[in-house]
Amino acid sequence: MQESKRIAIVGSGLVGSLLAIYLRNRGHEVDVYDRRPDIRTIEFSGRSINLAMSLRGWNALKEAGVAEAVRKLAIRMDKRAIHVVGKPVYFQPYGKEGEAIYSISRGVLNKKMIDLAEEAGTRFLFESKVWDVDLPTATIHTGQAENEAREALAYDMVFGADGAFSRVRHKMQRQGRFNYSQEFLQTGYKELSIPANADGSHRLDKHSLHIWPRGMFMLIALPNLDGSFTCTLFMPFEGKNSFEVLNTESKVRQFFQAYFPDVIEVMPDLLEDFFRNPTSTLVTVKCFPWTYEDKVALIGDAAHAIVPFYGQGMNAGFEDIRVLNNLMNVHGDDWATVFRSYQATRKPDADAIAELSFRNFMEMSTKTADPSFILRKKIESRFAEKYPDQWLPLYSRVTFSERPYAEALAEGDRQRAVMDEVMKTKGIEDIWDSEAVEQKILQLLEATSS
Amino acid sequence: MQESKRIAIVGSGLVGSLLAIYLRNRGHEVDVYDRRPDIRTIEFSGRSINLAMSLRGWNALKEAGVAEAVRKLAIRMDKRAIHVVGKPVYFQPYGKEGEAIYSISRGVLNKKMIDLAEEAGTRFLFESKVWDVDLPTATIHTGQAENEAREALAYDMVFGADGAFSRVRHKMQRQGRFNYSQEFLQTGYKELSIPANADGSHRLDKHSLHIWPRGMFMLIALPNLDGSFTCTLFMPFEGKNSFEVLNTESKVRQFFQAYFPDVIEVMPDLLEDFFRNPTSTLVTVKCFPWTYEDKVALIGDAAHAIVPFYGQGMNAGFEDIRVLNNLMNVHGDDWATVFRSYQATRKPDADAIAELSFRNFMEMSTKTADPSFILRKKIESRFAEKYPDQWLPLYSRVTFSERPYAEALAEGDRQRAVMDEVMKTKGIEDIWDSEAVEQKILQLLEATSS
Repeated sequence: MQESKRIAIVGSGLVGSLLAIYLRNRGHEVDVYDRRPDIRTIEFSGRSINLAMSLRGWNALKEAGVAEAVRKLAIRMDKRAIHVVGKPVYFQPYGKEGEAIYSISRGVLNKKMIDLAEEAGTRFLFESKVWDVDLPTATIHTGQAENEAREALAYDMVFGADGAFSRVRHKMQRQGRFNYSQEFLQTGYKELSIPANADGSHRLDKHSLHIWPRGMFMLIALPNLDGSFTCTLFMPFEGKNSFEVLNTESKVRQFFQAYFPDVIEVMPDLLEDFFRNPTSTLVTVKCFPWTYEDKVALIGDAAHAIVPFYGQGMNAGFEDIRVLNNLMNVHGDDWATVFRSYQATRKPDADAIAELSFRNFMEMSTKTADPSFILRKKIESRFAEKYPDQWLPLYSRVTFSERPYAEALAEGDRQRAVMDEVMKTKGIEDIWDSEAVEQKILQLLEATSS
Repeated sequence: MQESKRIAIVGSGLVGSLLAIYLRNRGHEVDVYDRRPDIRTIEFSGRSINLAMSLRGWNALKEAGVAEAVRKLAIRMDKRAIHVVGKPVYFQPYGKEGEAIYSISRGVLNKKMIDLAEEAGTRFLFESKVWDVDLPTATIHTGQAENEAREALAYDMVFGADGAFSRVRHKMQRQGRFNYSQEFLQTGYKELSIPANADGSHRLDKHSLHIWPRGMFMLIALPNLDGSFTCTLFMPFEGKNSFEVLNTESKVRQFFQAYFPDVIEVMPDLLEDFFRNPTSTLVTVKCFPWTYEDKVALIGDAAHAIVPFYGQGMNAGFEDIRVLNNLMNVHGDDWATVFRSYQATRKPDADAIAELSFRNFMEMSTKTADPSFILRKKIESRFAEKYPDQWLPLYSRVTFSERPYAEALAEGDRQRAVMDEVMKTKGIEDIWDSEAVEQKILQLLEATSS
């Protein structure tokens, strides 16, 4: 039995709330601070992308005993629905029979996670901004406004779950030898919406993640329980087709008519949404170390914010918590070792999923519309089905397995090299499902095995 | 004739002072702010590495009309002197006959640069910390202490020349979409010293940059005018031979006896220096953008701090100023274009010299003691002498030419690939100066030319 600790979590988002549940389950006293008001009391919208929960996320929820409660909020998506202008919708399964990712509204899930954490005995302190953290003593300084009197509250431990622009990390950054990077994409995003039909049904296939790939920009849509879809337009900030250029209603209308003609019909509030919702940035944040002695640790986006193109941001954050929990099982009260092991095992995986997520924008926005890419995927999945021990597709390894992200990145690169060779085969379009191609893959795998 | 502007420079270091001279030469009004006292009134020491001025630095000084004044402070170094335990000193020329780099004490040069800038009519405001910068109005807020009354001073332009931990950059970082990274080496450094002989002469060869390469750590020594050498010990912070481990006088003595026996004799103040001087960190800082409209620009380390292993930190900063000056010649009063062109042309070169500097630690600390590396250098320089149009060695391109750093990085990689092949030649040790090796290099160059 571990000694009960007094623990502060900064940030009441998804990862902070999940950690609170785990720590409560272990018998610790947990206070969660958030500078924002209670999300359950306000309308949440305007700058979100729906979440795609996959195996890592589910398993972390399961171990905390809350997976069933969350599953009720989720809609199964077993395929991509790819919309190319002038062509019928093309469906591409994500994995094998039965494998799927799950669409959940960020706001809906966040509210539920706070409910669940509260039921588990967590104390939430909203509108309490943490202005400063004293690392060696795990003391936080909170208050509502910067110049107001602040309260100093000492804990046994502080977790920074305060997102990509973390205040806790900012404090760690002022130490010597703290490695840090923030890199913004030239691409931004804007939330749009497809409402439900009058009868509450979905206007597009409900069990698909819809993609309108257009090269430098793309639109996606993920289903909600109420029959609506939350849509996200990803587009460069500047340039020919960009947020900068689309600055009048008529330009937006023309742009959608040219590139997303099938969307206009189902998006009655397009112009209102477009000009009301903010244009948000996409950033990759990396840092190291993630922990300070046995006192402070960063989790989720605060440690490793990534771009959303692999749908792994929340899943990676939830997996952080599961990894931490496993280390608490192993090392008990030796928190210094728990924290040191956590950052040592987790950092390479966080870097790997950052890289995979960055690369996946090109795959989603360009390649999903490319016949050669579609053929490649068909060859891969045919081979994977026949030789499951020899080929776990990269997407599946990331999404439907708990193999380390770093392994996924390395194996993915190896598979890509193999497939680059396979695609050079003469007449591959005609013989893609032949024995000869199969043998070639087996040989290439043999040659590159380590 | 350009319109005269009121310009503030934050930071009275080498690059800020040089910019002041250029701007005064163009008729602008220039105020330089520094939070520290006037370096000319205090003792400067304890955490510096001597500078190695090379062509880029000299040319930037020449164009400002101050090269001759600085040359009097410099000592020519035309070779590396490599000290391996149990072997005689090995001398390796840096370039062709007449080519050399120049050792200058940072403190001595900084004092002189401030004198020269003052003579040119610059106003220096020491002990004036810039707490905040309003970017759109180029207004700085200064004062001596944080809680004291601050003064708001509006300028036409503000330059951030305030080094690797720049306050001006920090202000730019708070904007959206500002890319930033700081990466620390696991290696730190400590300043040590070899005093002059009683008669004022140097205890080691005066015209060499001395290196004691020991793999994971190394010692270097650069000559000063007064007969002394400024030495720098580069070593990991933690591990077997590290700053952490060398925590008593007897351990330091034993360490030097084991690895630098020839140094002990000439370093009478070793133990005192070792425990008095701080252990400093080595950081690479990258960011973008470097400028804000026509109002604010970062220069030198504030824009691109690099590790010191190519001796190019100051040279790169001085080259920034020369690039800026050329753009002012071209674009006149169109400062928005000057700033935009400056960051666009300069950023790839800054990234390239950062990479080359990072790589060069391994070359200095390990390879300079490696017979195969020494042979490689001999082959290269023999070939370069015979075919100067076909082969400008990487070190020479960086140090003795003004070709862009980005080109040096790319050409260096190409040359390395060629030499990797050449070194595989059977019996290369015996036939290295043969016609056959020469022909092989010519063929390989032909094959890789673009």
